[in-house]
Amino acid sequence: MSIVFSSHPEPPYFAVIFCSEIDRSEADAYVRMSEAMTRLAARQSGFLGLDEIPREGGIGLNVSYWRDEASIEAWKENAEHALARETGRREWYEWFHLRVARVERSYSFRRG
Amino acid sequence: MSIVFSSHPEPPYFAVIFCSEIDRSEADAYVRMSEAMTRLAARQSGFLGLDEIPREGGIGLNVSYWRDEASIEAWKENAEHALARETGRREWYEWFHLRVARVERSYSFRRG
Repeated sequence: MSIVFSSHPEPPYFAVIFCSEIDRSEADAYVRMSEAMTRLAARQSGFLGLDEIPREGGIGLNVSYWRDEASIEAWKENAEHALARETGRREWYEWFHLRVARVERSYSFRRG
Repeated sequence: MSIVFSSHPEPPYFAVIFCSEIDRSEADAYVRMSEAMTRLAARQSGFLGLDEIPREGGIGLNVSYWRDEASIEAWKENAEHALARETGRREWYEWFHLRVARVERSYSFRRG
């Protein structure tokens, strides 16, 4: 699964925190869907980036960043994305937790 | 590295989103510190949980959850935590990005 790092705009903006476990026998199909959804999300208005690292033992955590709640709502209503979520609930996810949060402040460090 | 899953209280509450890359030659020392900090955080007032999956290629992503900003501030001022952060900047982190966000809403799914 790809690793994508977000840009770091000035707050406020929004984060969608998504933690999930998938049926491991479905991992290949899930990864294909997930990568397609990342490419699609990256073309949405208001998309600011994604932090994600590869799943470990079926469990995954990613955070996508959005300009405002309207951008999150528009992405939720995207037809291809809605179909992927429906397939996910029917075939792939054991469980997931999704949180929408407003980023209030941020701090970065880089060595050297 | 341990995997810890958070509880899911009713919003609003706060999330600290932490994405980082460590010097891989320091991974063992980092993991020991990180596990000690997780145990210490879990004893702090206002700590609600942690979502974390193991690092991949030195890169990690975790989200800790807190009752309010005062809890986050108190944890930041914990002496042992402050020392760990200082050591991290000096010896372990190539870079990190930390975001503090207010969780506005959440949604969960479980199969079956």
